[in-house]
Amino acid sequence: MKTLGVGLIGSGYMGKCHALAWNNVAAIFGDVPRPRLVALAEASLDLARQRAEEFGFDQATDDWKSLIADPDIDIISITTPNAFHAEMAIAALQAGKHVWCEKPMAPRLESASAMRDAARTAAQTARCIAAIGYNYIQNPVFRQIKSLIESGGIGTITHVRVEMDEDFMADADQAFYWKSESASGYGALDDFAVHPLSLLYTLFGPLASVACDMVKPYAERPLASGGRRAVENHDIASMLCRFDSGLSATVCVNRSAWGRKGRIAVQIYGSKGSILYDQERMNEFQLYLADDPAALSGFRTILTGPQHPPYGRFIPAPGHGLGFNDLKTIECREILVAIAGKPAHLIDFETGYRVEMAIHAMAKAHTERRWVDLSEFE
Amino acid sequence: MKTLGVGLIGSGYMGKCHALAWNNVAAIFGDVPRPRLVALAEASLDLARQRAEEFGFDQATDDWKSLIADPDIDIISITTPNAFHAEMAIAALQAGKHVWCEKPMAPRLESASAMRDAARTAAQTARCIAAIGYNYIQNPVFRQIKSLIESGGIGTITHVRVEMDEDFMADADQAFYWKSESASGYGALDDFAVHPLSLLYTLFGPLASVACDMVKPYAERPLASGGRRAVENHDIASMLCRFDSGLSATVCVNRSAWGRKGRIAVQIYGSKGSILYDQERMNEFQLYLADDPAALSGFRTILTGPQHPPYGRFIPAPGHGLGFNDLKTIECREILVAIAGKPAHLIDFETGYRVEMAIHAMAKAHTERRWVDLSEFE
Amino acid sequence: MKTLGVGLIGSGYMGKCHALAWNNVAAIFGDVPRPRLVALAEASLDLARQRAEEFGFDQATDDWKSLIADPDIDIISITTPNAFHAEMAIAALQAGKHVWCEKPMAPRLESASAMRDAARTAAQTARCIAAIGYNYIQNPVFRQIKSLIESGGIGTITHVRVEMDEDFMADADQAFYWKSESASGYGALDDFAVHPLSLLYTLFGPLASVACDMVKPYAERPLASGGRRAVENHDIASMLCRFDSGLSATVCVNRSAWGRKGRIAVQIYGSKGSILYDQERMNEFQLYLADDPAALSGFRTILTGPQHPPYGRFIPAPGHGLGFNDLKTIECREILVAIAGKPAHLIDFETGYRVEMAIHAMAKAHTERRWVDLSEFE
Amino acid sequence: MKTLGVGLIGSGYMGKCHALAWNNVAAIFGDVPRPRLVALAEASLDLARQRAEEFGFDQATDDWKSLIADPDIDIISITTPNAFHAEMAIAALQAGKHVWCEKPMAPRLESASAMRDAARTAAQTARCIAAIGYNYIQNPVFRQIKSLIESGGIGTITHVRVEMDEDFMADADQAFYWKSESASGYGALDDFAVHPLSLLYTLFGPLASVACDMVKPYAERPLASGGRRAVENHDIASMLCRFDSGLSATVCVNRSAWGRKGRIAVQIYGSKGSILYDQERMNEFQLYLADDPAALSGFRTILTGPQHPPYGRFIPAPGHGLGFNDLKTIECREILVAIAGKPAHLIDFETGYRVEMAIHAMAKAHTERRWVDLSEFE
Repeated sequence: MKTLGVGLIGSGYMGKCHALAWNNVAAIFGDVPRPRLVALAEASLDLARQRAEEFGFDQATDDWKSLIADPDIDIISITTPNAFHAEMAIAALQAGKHVWCEKPMAPRLESASAMRDAARTAAQTARCIAAIGYNYIQNPVFRQIKSLIESGGIGTITHVRVEMDEDFMADADQAFYWKSESASGYGALDDFAVHPLSLLYTLFGPLASVACDMVKPYAERPLASGGRRAVENHDIASMLCRFDSGLSATVCVNRSAWGRKGRIAVQIYGSKGSILYDQERMNEFQLYLADDPAALSGFRTILTGPQHPPYGRFIPAPGHGLGFNDLKTIECREILVAIAGKPAHLIDFETGYRVEMAIHAMAKAHTERRWVDLSEFE
Repeated sequence: MKTLGVGLIGSGYMGKCHALAWNNVAAIFGDVPRPRLVALAEASLDLARQRAEEFGFDQATDDWKSLIADPDIDIISITTPNAFHAEMAIAALQAGKHVWCEKPMAPRLESASAMRDAARTAAQTARCIAAIGYNYIQNPVFRQIKSLIESGGIGTITHVRVEMDEDFMADADQAFYWKSESASGYGALDDFAVHPLSLLYTLFGPLASVACDMVKPYAERPLASGGRRAVENHDIASMLCRFDSGLSATVCVNRSAWGRKGRIAVQIYGSKGSILYDQERMNEFQLYLADDPAALSGFRTILTGPQHPPYGRFIPAPGHGLGFNDLKTIECREILVAIAGKPAHLIDFETGYRVEMAIHAMAKAHTERRWVDLSEFE
Repeated sequence: MKTLGVGLIGSGYMGKCHALAWNNVAAIFGDVPRPRLVALAEASLDLARQRAEEFGFDQATDDWKSLIADPDIDIISITTPNAFHAEMAIAALQAGKHVWCEKPMAPRLESASAMRDAARTAAQTARCIAAIGYNYIQNPVFRQIKSLIESGGIGTITHVRVEMDEDFMADADQAFYWKSESASGYGALDDFAVHPLSLLYTLFGPLASVACDMVKPYAERPLASGGRRAVENHDIASMLCRFDSGLSATVCVNRSAWGRKGRIAVQIYGSKGSILYDQERMNEFQLYLADDPAALSGFRTILTGPQHPPYGRFIPAPGHGLGFNDLKTIECREILVAIAGKPAHLIDFETGYRVEMAIHAMAKAHTERRWVDLSEFE
Repeated sequence: MKTLGVGLIGSGYMGKCHALAWNNVAAIFGDVPRPRLVALAEASLDLARQRAEEFGFDQATDDWKSLIADPDIDIISITTPNAFHAEMAIAALQAGKHVWCEKPMAPRLESASAMRDAARTAAQTARCIAAIGYNYIQNPVFRQIKSLIESGGIGTITHVRVEMDEDFMADADQAFYWKSESASGYGALDDFAVHPLSLLYTLFGPLASVACDMVKPYAERPLASGGRRAVENHDIASMLCRFDSGLSATVCVNRSAWGRKGRIAVQIYGSKGSILYDQERMNEFQLYLADDPAALSGFRTILTGPQHPPYGRFIPAPGHGLGFNDLKTIECREILVAIAGKPAHLIDFETGYRVEMAIHAMAKAHTERRWVDLSEFE
């Protein structure tokens, strides 16, 4: 593998995650060349310089286009606000750069569609990789679950439920801010539901049809300036789903769920057993096997360890725990694998686009109070 | 309170539960007269005699109508198969007896409607009490939750989710039996969903509209006699619900959920906190209060104790645990309270009928692949 | 089996438990004759009459000796304060009655020794059964664990830990009462440690030697009358133990442990697996089997069900839960089994005496700040 | 703060942890200069070069003394096998370098004593910092607990229990290797007990006296070469402890505990509440507050978040989880704080030495089957 030159656009929390991943991937995995952290772009040059120093990048700039023009840079990490993703990703791909873009792709489906088209073209013309940063699929727990399902470990899948809940919008007295504007999207649906869908699409392929009910727990919120403003989108959404395969699932999301902090609770039922896990306890999952002896059968709480790759690259002993940021390092590794031309565990722009299409179908199902087929969006 | 004479029809598991309740209610509560266990009716006289001896009833009969005619009997416990409920309950009510009937009311909605009408009449003419045995509402945990919600302990309720899952139909190789016949009902919907609905109706009143998706995890099952037979109803059902109040809820039921044994998992989200509980751990619930200090806030796991009435009637020390059968003794106490003319915590035939109406609305929503308003059933 | 006549002395909480057990045992188990509840004795005749009515006993008396003299009574349930156990049990045994006596046997070891001697004699002369009410060993969970250990399910046992914790003495401001007097015993040691020992002696036989450290969390407590009084015994005790077999165990008890309500947490480690359980969640236990595949191994949380006898006698479906009071009904059934001359799962006066000997050895080890061999007490 | 030059000796797992910490500390915390990774020393030059490349160090060497001689290096990370710690740490301190040394200090108490002496001298002569890598004290959960205790959040501490259990020695058929040799130490005592002691010493100061019982679960183990060899140390140890303050604690460790992977379970009981946590679920702890309303009191499961510093430096959202390796980055930050002359949260060579003294006292208590006062070691 050749040493890659990295350009990072954006240095907020996700920018930091990308930076840590680029710094750590070689030390953690031990079999990839340590990337060169070439340049970091931020809106202001001062901030860019500060972050470049902290994050270990050689250069700083306030012109993101200079990164795309830089021949020393092979891959662009895009961690800016969603509204900028499309322009930056398309420019990078057109310049023959690989792209690692944070989710979701774009506020509007047409933008996501244009990104997908650019990725298709760049893959053919320049073998470019274009991946979306759906890092929850990188959890060793999730990989183990995927492997278990694919090997028939719990038989034929009969039903699935996924819930994603947090409470950062649970306070009725919290001042109105952009997250409650319709311009920011449907609410919990695009804010959260893309994550459950990233898991579901990875495990079970695309959805066929959906019903949806969205709720505003608070019709209005106080304005910081005084007075109140009507809330324009929905903090809660509940969906009934059918996959192309006929498999049924429920997806429930709630960003006003007091007490939930980073919950992504998954229940997968099969003909030979069941699997449960919750991202709030990201280092464990639960497994029930139907063929255990009746008096001794129960859900096993399995702590991750070296037997669940790539956990062992991080820690040689089981039960010690990875952190959320480690998932980004695993994702970074997958990007490197993909660039090397090998099969990688990623959500590319094709699947990323399908995920966003599902979101829009759900919103339509809510508005029109009916089941919506995803074929309506093809 | 006068001493009641009790007649029991049926002596299967639920009959045993009623008998235990009648035996224990005075010892447990200490402030009601010990009922007289007058007579037990079963299909065969031999069985009736055996059970009467075991259960402590004075007389045994194979003619249930003799119980209804017996002037020494004030209340009839009905624990026969569902198809017999309507005839027995209506006869008892018309004879001026109180009725304690196991759930659900009846396979057909018209029968349930007739039961409700008989109860209305008997209440007026003979002050008869008519209650359905939805004992999960008697759990001290549930009572505490109800009280907490009513006192505003978690603010305005913003969203609710209930799941009920067991695994007695999870084995694909289990032989076809009557539970998979359409004659037995819709499947998980009437088998299970009535229980979540008993909880929801008690807390939040009636539903206004529903969407529903039902699934057959196994299209056919082996016949004990060889060959296979198509499954006629659905072991899995998922519902989106709106209450008259506008409150949204999801209700998911699955009797093919490997590893689930007696799960009724409830999530109640409010503007000031959240409540969780699961009937599989029926002696605890979880509470999150939004106004706890940020660094010290989390779901409290609250073990039941004397501070959660009527737990203290059973055990003076907290954390020692009631059992499922104890719920029936609490329910029995509520029946006695109601008969004494005081407000009781019960599901009467009015609400029982509404619960069953909701089930039929859900089935219709599934079949017609649309949202169904409950007003369509009025 | 012949119908037994029952006499009950004492009608506090444990008296109620015995009464419920005698009322329910035939209905629950279905294969023993329903006992006759002949007479109940209490200190006052009024209370005796009230309780006899509530509990279903035919007669009431304020003279416990009349029960022992009554030829219609075959078995005496003793549920009076501990100081009365010895006199009553010895009188009953000498009269040829079976005895079911609540734990612990007696405040002083010599009294317990006399009880044991009386039981030995009565067993020979009149085939009397004499059992101590250590009902935690009746939990179906515990029976399953015992069976699992005996069948080698987790290999050779390598280490054991038991903790018993409650919080009824945790409040420093709680007024001084008799539980803090040395006359009432050592404190947590005899109040609590007998329970872990009942479990350990049932599983692993007698202890050989112990070290012990006892603690007074609060040196004095307020008097209800004003002022403060020095606490005379210890609310916390921690023990290192060796069994005759060489097996090592720790036993820790604390009745000042805020938040613990009915905790008896057991950890059993073996060469092929481990078992955990906690009486606060009395309907489940956890099992780890070393030969599960590495990537899929974890503690199974096993919910009790009909596969764990005698759960199925109470409820036909798994996961629905027994309660604390149900344990007494199981114990009652074992008494009946023992009386019928069959092997029963009970702690008799022989083992009961050994348990109390261990308590006194622990207290000595604390006082003398050294390891104490139980042979010092033979 | 000036930019530090770092030299790393050793590149096994702990070496990797130090390297990641040095790489990440500036990006994570954002207010310290990014250290210069000057040189890495390993036993072989090839390995040193490979690791230097992976870990981002500029130079590689097979001569650790060259690091100590290098004027560009300000601090030495020592991550070699324990037997080398003393020589390296003392040499580094004598050269005026700061030292960050992995635990435990040294196999023999005299070596630890010499290290402490060297640290004392270097602190005076060159303001050197000397810290031991007890990273479990860096968990934000532990910091929160410490702060809570110090602010009186659970009142006066009345009792403490700590257990540390893993299962890497649980397999009886595992071949004999150096961990079972007495030359490697007492067994679980020095392998594990130092960790609970690092927590306890940080919270409660030094121990005064101990009793101890150690156990060999397997008397011998198979040799890889055939035959069997006697195990020379103990995989299980249980201790009764008293602190200088009089506080009592139990410490139990077991490296043969099937199913335990990284368990460090802590129970802290106070006069106003209780705290529980387990390192296997390192992102949460449990808190019981006595003054919660009786009907609503229970252990809160608190997920870590930005309100628990320095969690927020890693992730802005709560409930997303740090990993074990992140603790080393926090420790690294504390080293930098200490070097800057500010109060830091570390175990220095003074306390580190006391921890090891306690281990030796425990071993003596086991051997001599008596309580041992730590003053015997002064």
